[in-house]
Amino acid sequence: MNERLNFACDYNQGAHPAILQRMLENNLVKSGVYGDDAFSESARAKIRTACRAPEADVWFLVGGTQTNAAVLDSVLRPFEGVISADTGHICIHEAGAIERGGHKVLALPGKAGKISAADIRACWDTWYGDGNRSHVVKPGAVYLSLPTEVGTLYSLAELEAISSVCREKGLCLYVDGARLAYSLACPENDVTLPDLARLCDVFYIGGTKCGSLLGEALVFPKHDTVPDFFSIIKQHGAVLAKGFVAGLQFDTLFTDNLYGEIGRTAIAAAERIRQALRSKGYTLAFDAPTNQIFVLLDDAALASLSEKVEMSFWDKPDAEHTTMRFVTSWATTEEEVDRLIELL
Amino acid sequence: MNERLNFACDYNQGAHPAILQRMLENNLVKSGVYGDDAFSESARAKIRTACRAPEADVWFLVGGTQTNAAVLDSVLRPFEGVISADTGHICIHEAGAIERGGHKVLALPGKAGKISAADIRACWDTWYGDGNRSHVVKPGAVYLSLPTEVGTLYSLAELEAISSVCREKGLCLYVDGARLAYSLACPENDVTLPDLARLCDVFYIGGTKCGSLLGEALVFPKHDTVPDFFSIIKQHGAVLAKGFVAGLQFDTLFTDNLYGEIGRTAIAAAERIRQALRSKGYTLAFDAPTNQIFVLLDDAALASLSEKVEMSFWDKPDAEHTTMRFVTSWATTEEEVDRLIELL
Amino acid sequence: MNERLNFACDYNQGAHPAILQRMLENNLVKSGVYGDDAFSESARAKIRTACRAPEADVWFLVGGTQTNAAVLDSVLRPFEGVISADTGHICIHEAGAIERGGHKVLALPGKAGKISAADIRACWDTWYGDGNRSHVVKPGAVYLSLPTEVGTLYSLAELEAISSVCREKGLCLYVDGARLAYSLACPENDVTLPDLARLCDVFYIGGTKCGSLLGEALVFPKHDTVPDFFSIIKQHGAVLAKGFVAGLQFDTLFTDNLYGEIGRTAIAAAERIRQALRSKGYTLAFDAPTNQIFVLLDDAALASLSEKVEMSFWDKPDAEHTTMRFVTSWATTEEEVDRLIELL
Amino acid sequence: MNERLNFACDYNQGAHPAILQRMLENNLVKSGVYGDDAFSESARAKIRTACRAPEADVWFLVGGTQTNAAVLDSVLRPFEGVISADTGHICIHEAGAIERGGHKVLALPGKAGKISAADIRACWDTWYGDGNRSHVVKPGAVYLSLPTEVGTLYSLAELEAISSVCREKGLCLYVDGARLAYSLACPENDVTLPDLARLCDVFYIGGTKCGSLLGEALVFPKHDTVPDFFSIIKQHGAVLAKGFVAGLQFDTLFTDNLYGEIGRTAIAAAERIRQALRSKGYTLAFDAPTNQIFVLLDDAALASLSEKVEMSFWDKPDAEHTTMRFVTSWATTEEEVDRLIELL
Repeated sequence: MNERLNFACDYNQGAHPAILQRMLENNLVKSGVYGDDAFSESARAKIRTACRAPEADVWFLVGGTQTNAAVLDSVLRPFEGVISADTGHICIHEAGAIERGGHKVLALPGKAGKISAADIRACWDTWYGDGNRSHVVKPGAVYLSLPTEVGTLYSLAELEAISSVCREKGLCLYVDGARLAYSLACPENDVTLPDLARLCDVFYIGGTKCGSLLGEALVFPKHDTVPDFFSIIKQHGAVLAKGFVAGLQFDTLFTDNLYGEIGRTAIAAAERIRQALRSKGYTLAFDAPTNQIFVLLDDAALASLSEKVEMSFWDKPDAEHTTMRFVTSWATTEEEVDRLIELL
Repeated sequence: MNERLNFACDYNQGAHPAILQRMLENNLVKSGVYGDDAFSESARAKIRTACRAPEADVWFLVGGTQTNAAVLDSVLRPFEGVISADTGHICIHEAGAIERGGHKVLALPGKAGKISAADIRACWDTWYGDGNRSHVVKPGAVYLSLPTEVGTLYSLAELEAISSVCREKGLCLYVDGARLAYSLACPENDVTLPDLARLCDVFYIGGTKCGSLLGEALVFPKHDTVPDFFSIIKQHGAVLAKGFVAGLQFDTLFTDNLYGEIGRTAIAAAERIRQALRSKGYTLAFDAPTNQIFVLLDDAALASLSEKVEMSFWDKPDAEHTTMRFVTSWATTEEEVDRLIELL
Repeated sequence: MNERLNFACDYNQGAHPAILQRMLENNLVKSGVYGDDAFSESARAKIRTACRAPEADVWFLVGGTQTNAAVLDSVLRPFEGVISADTGHICIHEAGAIERGGHKVLALPGKAGKISAADIRACWDTWYGDGNRSHVVKPGAVYLSLPTEVGTLYSLAELEAISSVCREKGLCLYVDGARLAYSLACPENDVTLPDLARLCDVFYIGGTKCGSLLGEALVFPKHDTVPDFFSIIKQHGAVLAKGFVAGLQFDTLFTDNLYGEIGRTAIAAAERIRQALRSKGYTLAFDAPTNQIFVLLDDAALASLSEKVEMSFWDKPDAEHTTMRFVTSWATTEEEVDRLIELL
Repeated sequence: MNERLNFACDYNQGAHPAILQRMLENNLVKSGVYGDDAFSESARAKIRTACRAPEADVWFLVGGTQTNAAVLDSVLRPFEGVISADTGHICIHEAGAIERGGHKVLALPGKAGKISAADIRACWDTWYGDGNRSHVVKPGAVYLSLPTEVGTLYSLAELEAISSVCREKGLCLYVDGARLAYSLACPENDVTLPDLARLCDVFYIGGTKCGSLLGEALVFPKHDTVPDFFSIIKQHGAVLAKGFVAGLQFDTLFTDNLYGEIGRTAIAAAERIRQALRSKGYTLAFDAPTNQIFVLLDDAALASLSEKVEMSFWDKPDAEHTTMRFVTSWATTEEEVDRLIELL
């Protein structure tokens, strides 16, 4: 097969074959609906175990934007806002979904996609530290992405410091793990699922970008953090009628650690590409060790490479250069990586 | 296999096998994302043809509640409301999704789930016909379900009359076709897809309850009825990242008229059950010719039948009787119907 | 003076002269702003005393619609709705302000503008009593008007029963007292301010329709019922920059029981009109003992009376009759009443 | 009179005496309600004349935050946002009122409270200029304050350039004139009311901070820019029942150019204070020629001055210095200015 290489994205193919196989085998099983089914129950139990959070409430939603909106609507009071890096998905790529729910996104300048405990403390002081506090939006939650939108990681120490300031100030800490498989599988990473369950108030384990057809597993480590959460996601139009379709996929992802394997496949491929780029003298943008690779290309290199491989545009730092992104996934083959490296 | 019969629901199994087969065959194809892919394009073309609406905009959303909310938010101004039968899905079973978007549902007492052109005209006059009109919610749209939540049908004449009053008053006419396959396949039905395209401003062709894993095909017969509609569904968290998963399913449903076959299977099964119920002296509630069968049971019959077959509770008209619902689908087998009839 | 009589409304003149005089005397006093001033503090103290609610939080807002919206937004969770009579101001005459805040108004058919404890209990059972409860809007509050929009009163026994069911079900009980002066002054009334403070979670004492230029005094009998309430009204645009303008007016209304005097003036005038109407054989609509008088007029009487006196249109029960409304206020003079009676 | 000097604010006293006198004279006049009265009609006519905008729609709202929210809700589609300087009132001091309406505030770093046509163009390009545009908030309006929150002015040339880019991009240009009297009266200003009517889509002429008890006059130069605008403000709880209270005040402000006189009084006082500060070696912050004076004080000067005069805190640029604000108004007397200058 000699079709054009495509490294544009980690959600442009179907599901990991093990998932599809399981769907096929269970296609005619009659289940409960709206998430009240045996597949979902089994998936919840496995996720609780993986997170060492035996009392956790686990919900399966379809996609990231609706998950973010439902979570933040449920934990914020009307006049409260959410602190986020200015590169955060909720800040720029959700067409204003958080604002539609009535909440301001308090954007902080991130460093390589990240904000720090000190940034959060300073934001609190600026917005809420003086006599005008009742006239301003009150910070009510902190939104982090792990890995971030530019593929970087929070260390355990960083996350612990952030969690600590959140608890001090009464801020709900929420982690968007759309690509969590790729941080968990990353050698540089030291934040585990039990760490997330211990340090966050709520987080989600991404499925859509990590091998399933769709679906995100939302985890509230503490039971009943948000009473009546089902009604909230129903009101958001975020309840999947055939909830078992998401449940079965997560049950498969958390069987025999398929989720870990998916991450490792993508990271190994990404690491080979990074090393090839470095050895051939390319400049990488960000210190991003996960499944997204950002490379600075001059116009000639961009033109030449674009002919042979599909990448995605990231930004244009100056008139002669462009940052392009390669993304690997559970489905990236060694042969695809070989072919890409040849072309570089 | 002698497991317990289950007629509770038309969305408690996977997808029609033809859909799953096609997903399997195309699982590793790399597609565009967010609905911009070849499967979705092909499905759109087939739907336009089926609706005889060559300029229609067609969108694939995940489920009914989010489709209803996105549509109504996009066609109503802030102070406008939507007229609906008081049994309408938006009125009672969406946890306030329409109100969350800021819009009042102007509920009218329905007759067997239906409202008439005269009801709509009277509602307009009541709410908006006198000198206080600027203090009240302005009716801005009409919501119908076809078939209705209780399985009944609007005739073509009824729909034409409703469309006419809507155009006279400037009301957007929106039809929720969550179970549209089952009206289209019904001998009593005289409303076709081209009729819907001609008479409505927007309608959706249900997938979730009609054989797909998920997905509703939203049709605006007139191009650009709502500019920037993608941004609206993005803001609603209603964009499926792997849009091709919905597109491929609708492409299959509209190939070789699978959608029609699915409807006919369910209707044939429902009709057999209805005849058996009638011949055995049961009382049917509503004059519902589609895939939902509502039967009035006294306490003894309810207890006896509940042991052997799963139905769904509908309502309790008096202390000794209960209305229960049987639902058939694309997946209902003749053998299941035989077994049910034996039990009645 | 022989100008045309005007009984259309109780908010079509300025303020009670005592208020305007006090404004004049204090016009150049430099005060704190946004409600943090000596006039407002004094008014709050007097209202707490009048309500026998020493810990009450008292806020001054500009008008009824914004007060209703701010209160209900602050006490309801996103998927919760508010129970109201279908004649309730929030239900029909606020252009969807409650829905704009995301909340459904659960309208119950009122009797002469009133709903009962039994109605509320039945509504809870219907909406929230069965297995579909998580798919529907949860009743979260009850809205009453006292006097109602048609001038009727809740008795203390009725209010106690309603309060009791609200506490049993966890519903916030909110009373809209836009015309409260006119119930308090009414001989038929047995609900006092301390009763309201004891039985409600929140209520407001109307100013706009009871002698001030503008302003409603919102009372939460229990301190900190809604933390950060200032931010909520700020976000609603409901904070008056010159808060002292409202505070001074309420301070005057609650000095030497001016509020009581205002009510008595209007009720005495209304009672004289009612007696004249009855004695002349007119049919009164509703059993309304407060400052609104609803009278059924045939077309001839309507035409004749409309020439000489301004009333307001209420409704048209049949083709030949119209219900018209006379309203009295603090400003209605005996001479005006004499002249009206002559014309009847 | 030797009470403590107070230069904290321009809205901490009642109304200009001419207004109060007129209220007194007309207190018992029976008027139409909700803004449909002779005072309001007269005020509208005078404002149209002053703006040379004979077809303008003019509305009287109570305060700035609710005006901003109502305007932006009415001109923006759900997924659109409003561009503002990061010091804009809507951006920081309205507790998230714009976000509550569902709209993102796209904050740009201002220079002395101002943004430029080039800033707006760059913002459009960043947010909406590339292939991701349908995933982001679309800029739909531009919000300016005149004078700005830090007392600075847009020149006519600047405003014309901004208006031009807005018309090119289809952005609604909205000017918040909470303190407009003080720019109009300023010698440095070259932007007149007719200029605003020519260059903006909508703007408001502030009353609350410019001599009235309350009220802002909102001007849409083009008739029916927003159809059904009354319903929008009703839904926002922003309709004053006794609309004539606002109408009468604006009618007085625009009689014999009282609005101009109010501005000149405040500007003359401010200019005397600025000259005194400069001549005594104080450092002024911002180049602000209107009625707000920002002065940088070291700790000693702050302590000393705070004992004798009430100012308002602005910010703290470093550990040893504080920026404080003096504000003058229509009510500032020469004697107060004399006493302040002595104290400096």
